[in-house]
This record gives sequence, structure tokens and C-alpha cells, in this order.
Amino acid sequence: MTDAEPRRQPARSETGDPLLLTPGPLTTSKSVKQAMVHDLGSRDEAFVALNRQALERLPEIVHGEGRYVAVPMQGSGTFAVEAMLTTFTPRDGVVLVLVNGAYGQRARRILDIARRAAIVHETAEDTPPDLAEVERILVATPAVTHVFAVHCETTSGILNPIEAIAAIVARQGRRLLIDAMSAFGALPLDSRTTPFDAVAASANKCLEGVPGLGFVVCRREALAETEGRATTLTLDLHDQHRALEKTGQYRFTPPIHVIVAFHQALEEFSHEGGVPGRGGRYAGNARVLIEGMRALGFRTLLPDALQAPIIVTFRTPDHPNFVFQRFYDGLKARGYVIYPGKLTVADSFRIGCIGRLDADHMRGALEAVRETLAEMDVDLTPR
Amino acid sequence: MTDAEPRRQPARSETGDPLLLTPGPLTTSKSVKQAMVHDLGSRDEAFVALNRQALERLPEIVHGEGRYVAVPMQGSGTFAVEAMLTTFTPRDGVVLVLVNGAYGQRARRILDIARRAAIVHETAEDTPPDLAEVERILVATPAVTHVFAVHCETTSGILNPIEAIAAIVARQGRRLLIDAMSAFGALPLDSRTTPFDAVAASANKCLEGVPGLGFVVCRREALAETEGRATTLTLDLHDQHRALEKTGQYRFTPPIHVIVAFHQALEEFSHEGGVPGRGGRYAGNARVLIEGMRALGFRTLLPDALQAPIIVTFRTPDHPNFVFQRFYDGLKARGYVIYPGKLTVADSFRIGCIGRLDADHMRGALEAVRETLAEMDVDLTPR
Repeated sequence: MTDAEPRRQPARSETGDPLLLTPGPLTTSKSVKQAMVHDLGSRDEAFVALNRQALERLPEIVHGEGRYVAVPMQGSGTFAVEAMLTTFTPRDGVVLVLVNGAYGQRARRILDIARRAAIVHETAEDTPPDLAEVERILVATPAVTHVFAVHCETTSGILNPIEAIAAIVARQGRRLLIDAMSAFGALPLDSRTTPFDAVAASANKCLEGVPGLGFVVCRREALAETEGRATTLTLDLHDQHRALEKTGQYRFTPPIHVIVAFHQALEEFSHEGGVPGRGGRYAGNARVLIEGMRALGFRTLLPDALQAPIIVTFRTPDHPNFVFQRFYDGLKARGYVIYPGKLTVADSFRIGCIGRLDADHMRGALEAVRETLAEMDVDLTPR
Repeated sequence: MTDAEPRRQPARSETGDPLLLTPGPLTTSKSVKQAMVHDLGSRDEAFVALNRQALERLPEIVHGEGRYVAVPMQGSGTFAVEAMLTTFTPRDGVVLVLVNGAYGQRARRILDIARRAAIVHETAEDTPPDLAEVERILVATPAVTHVFAVHCETTSGILNPIEAIAAIVARQGRRLLIDAMSAFGALPLDSRTTPFDAVAASANKCLEGVPGLGFVVCRREALAETEGRATTLTLDLHDQHRALEKTGQYRFTPPIHVIVAFHQALEEFSHEGGVPGRGGRYAGNARVLIEGMRALGFRTLLPDALQAPIIVTFRTPDHPNFVFQRFYDGLKARGYVIYPGKLTVADSFRIGCIGRLDADHMRGALEAVRETLAEMDVDLTPR
């Protein structure tokens, strides 16, 4: 929105929709969505080729060409995480789960339901894991076979020290499983220096596809060891990979349209310059957002050093006139959709920096925040 | 295709794609696909309302309003079947699986992997279950808690006697779980007279949505008993239902675009007159196809009494010049995509009658078959 436009005209995406400042589903490009206006057969050569091209790009994003392979999983990111945990962990394995938010908790619940043993190292939602304690647990507990960590915890937006975690896990001779849902494609993860067995992510976060497909980038040698470990048919990554490698086809009907959109999204990701380009745009978005919100008197949950440029948690202001639902509705009416908080440590709300959004969109959002605060008669700036 | 068009111009759908004469993914309407060219937030009121409307229609299709509830499952039809089997069967339950094709076999494999006990009653791919034998097994085996049956086995296209199976299961006081993947919405299934605990199906078969979403229509009272039975988090229908009922929102990111397309597909389903309208069109397609193919000298696997109007299996002709790949390619070049066979009992191929296709499309496909046979110098008609 420029000043020349009337204030009452709400912001809209290229396809006329409100802008999603959320951690996904997020605003995607028009061309990504338009790729879905076709039907292809799942055994069709054209589809098989598009799917293969898309999957082949994913290991490159973690510099794992040759050594790593991407296994897609229909469903959502959580389907990919459950597939990773239940395919890689042997039935008698023990997983050390690093928890500082809802996604770490969720991994623990998945393991409990699948009857895999888990040990939890939990820190507060605004606190990274205690690395010395992690190493101490591994030394003291030889039964631990795997460590599970979340790269960027979407609960708070915290960036966990994945490189340091990987170094400890490798030093102690264990295997690392990563949930990089909201980080993959925007935050660097280099498998050459940060060793891991598998990383789960989704088409619909920083890669800017539409929702309906998760994937797990697996170290080939580690995946080869997992035959027969899975406790389901559909979520068995070993079986899924074997079928795709053998025939190029999915075992079960793939979400064709979602995959064709993902192929287009990956083209646009490459065109933007891969991780540095995509991550750079998001970092710019986060900078504009955080500076602007601070200037309006809001406070972030996290110090800048722990803040990933993916989603930012703001504390709910302690002002008698500030009502979150009115704030949300005011922004929505102006074309900006934000996200409620999910924290236990503090009342909060979240604003996402990912998707087909740039610094101008963030400035538009800040203007909408300013107008909505005025409407609510809330002034948070020190006087 | 009309006679006025040049023969070399291949047939195309409204969006310029080859016509999919397959059991899914299938040809959908342009308006269904165009519904996907928007982004909505998963917590957005508009999306929550569209999703609720779509789900509310599904129990009506089996005349189960009030007594039944539809629980969606991200992924594909098989995800819904695995969710149904592992949510409804207690860990100490025993399932009698009726098998006459790949989908019955798949259910058995799901149960084996989930470590649920299964007994199999298997008949040939062209033979319905032996109803007297089914009843005998139930009488002789009190441990059996559930019976699993496939309504239309897509492997052959056979219509299984679901009403008679349901009557036996009810008489013996057991519970029935149905895989109606390729039947739901086109073949009548009336929960008032055909009692069942759950039926699994997909957005992407006779309801003519795009792939990426399965669902299970569950008897409310039976679903309420299933708490804690599931062996996964993502495929737990009880948990999925509880969250949707409580908040209107999915536990894990839903495939928004696929669901919005499904909502549009259900509008078009209602507009066509529901099951009688949709099933009537498919029956017409099947009639034109079977009569035309027989006139060209092909033979169906199944007698007409066992043939569902969903997908038709033809025996591969015993003619020295008939090469399936050339036949497939010849039809593809003319705009018609068919399906290879999946039978163990006979060499075969399959042609689907479902999706956004009418009798004219089937006549076009027959003309393409005629031309392709001529090209291959194959004449199958008796002389």
C-alpha cells in the first residue's frame, strides 16, 4: 500500500486475498497456485518427471547431494515428523527429545503413542537447550540411540543451536533427527558440517508451496538401515522411498496438484537464489517488523540473538484498552492476518515473516497496526 | 470430439489436459481446480466455514445425518483406511478381512504392521466373498470383533455385496468397517439399512475433488468408544474429530487448497443430483464403454452382474500384434489416459468411467481405441 491509495482499501495478495502473516499456510505466489489448474495422472510421465525434479532439489538445500535422499510424505509437516520418528527409531530405541515448545512436546507424544522410549530435556519456551546438560545425559545414558531437536521452534520463533547440538550428538556417537519445519530453505543447514540422519520439513513453509505435502531428507545409509522399523504402512519412509526409487511412482495416490505447485515453488526458490536469497528476504522482513513494532511500543519475547527471522512473538501489551480479538480483527479488516500466541510463559501473539511477502508488505502491516492501535485508543510509546 | 474436428487433434479437458480414464487422480471440473487459486489461513473463519460445510455433507450421502460424523484425514484414501483400521480396532481386537483384490490385501498388511490380529477370507479377483463362509467364520470364531470389506474393489472393478455382508455382520453382533474408496458418492450405501461403524473414502474419486484428502464417515457412538486405541498421532480419528468439534480447526495444517476444491466439488455433486445423478452418469459411461469395447472384440473380466460402473477390466486380447504399451501410447496421443491392469488372475488393462466425463467422452475414447487398433493392425472382431 502506498500513501496514494485510500487507507480504507485493504491490502491484498496477487490473487486478491488477505496477506497471511502466519507460520503457514502462508501467502504463495500466483504462479504457484495457477500451476494447480490442471489434472495429471499419477503414473503420467510428465508428473513423474516433475515429482522427481522437485525431490532431487531438496538434498541440495542441505548440501547433501548423493549422500542424502528426499522422501515425500502426503499429509502435512506433522505427518513427516511422525514418519521420521517411527521409521528411524527402532522399536527398542531410546530418543532424547529436546523440548522448548509445542513441536518438541508433539514429538514426545508421537514417541509415546508409538511406544518408543523417550527421555526429555526441557527448557522454557524462550530458552535454548542446555548443551552441557545434553552432553551429560548422552554420556550418562548409553541406551539413548537418537536425539530429536527442533531447528526453529514455531511456538516462540526461537532459533535453536542446531550446529552445536549436532556436534555433541556426533561426538557421542548417536543419531540426530531434526524438525526443521519452519526453517528449511531459509535458515542454513549444512549436512557436511552439521551431521544428521534425517530432517523433516514441509512444502508449505519457507519453500512457499501450498500445504498437503511433507518430506524428510534422509541420509541414504541411515535410511537403508530402517527396513521393518515403521509401525504404520502409510508413514513408512523406507517403503515409500523404495517404491519411488523403483518405479518413480507413489505407493498411494499423491496430492498431484500440491506437488505440481511445489515444483513451481522450487523453481521460484532457485530463482530467488536459494537459501541466501530466501533467508535474506525473510531477515529483511523480520528487521522491518521488529524495529517498527518496537517503535510502536511492543516488546518481543526473545532477545535478538535468539530470534529466527521466521515468526516473531510479541508480548501482549499491558494496556487496559488492548483487546487481542479487536487487534486481530482490525488487522484482518486491513488485509493482514496474524496468529495468536501459543506460549505458556507469557500472553502473546505472533506475526510471521515468511511467504510471498517483502519489506513493503511489512511496512503496510505496521501501518495497519498503527491505525488499529489508534482505533482502540492504545498508545504504547513512553511519554 | 465431433466428426467435424480433425482426427489428429487430441481430446482435451476444459483445462487442456488429456482425459483421465483412470480410477483417480481423475479429470475434475475447471471450477474445482480454479477454487485453488487463493490462499486462506487455516484458522480463518471463511476456511473454517467451508470445511465444516463440506464435512457436514458427507454423512448425508449415506443417510446418516445426526448418527454419523465425517472425520477428514490429510494424505490420501489409504491414509484414511489406515486411520480407520488403527482407530477402530482395539489393540486386542481381531478383524476378519474379506479379500478379493489389492485393497483387501492392503488392509490386511496395515493390520499386520499395526500388530492387530487378522483372519482372511479370500476369493479370486473376479469372485465375491462366499457369504455362507463369512457367516460360518463369525459363528466359529467369537474372538472376531470387526469385519473389513471393500465396496467396489478397484483392482478388478467388482461390486461386492456390501448390503448382504452388513446384514451378516449385524446378525452376528460384530462391527463392519468399509473401504468404499471408489464407490462413495456414486454407488448407494444407506446406513439406515446397511449398518456399519465406519466407511473410508476420498475427495478424489466419485466426489470429483482433487487428491490430498481422505475421510472416514463414522457412527458417532462407535467413534466415541475408540479413545486411546490409535497407534499413531496423525492417523488418530478420535483425536482429529475431538479437535475439529471443539475448535473447528485441524490439529495439523490441513491441505487448504484441496479442501476448498473439495467444497466446490461437493457443490457440483449436489447440483448433479447426489448419488442418483452422479451414479447415473457413471452407469451411462460404463454402458457406452462396455458395449463399444465388446463391439470391437474386447472381453470384460467380469460378468455384467458383478461389474460396478466405476472402472472396467478388459482382458488383454490374444492377438500377436496387440502390444499393451503401443495401445496405451496410441490412446494417450489421442488424449485418453487409461490404466494398466493389477490382476493376478489374467493379463488385463482397465478403463475408468469416473471423473468429469460423459457419454460423449466415452464415445471419443472408443473412436481412439478403434484408430489405435487399426494402427497396430489388430482386428478382434469375429469374421
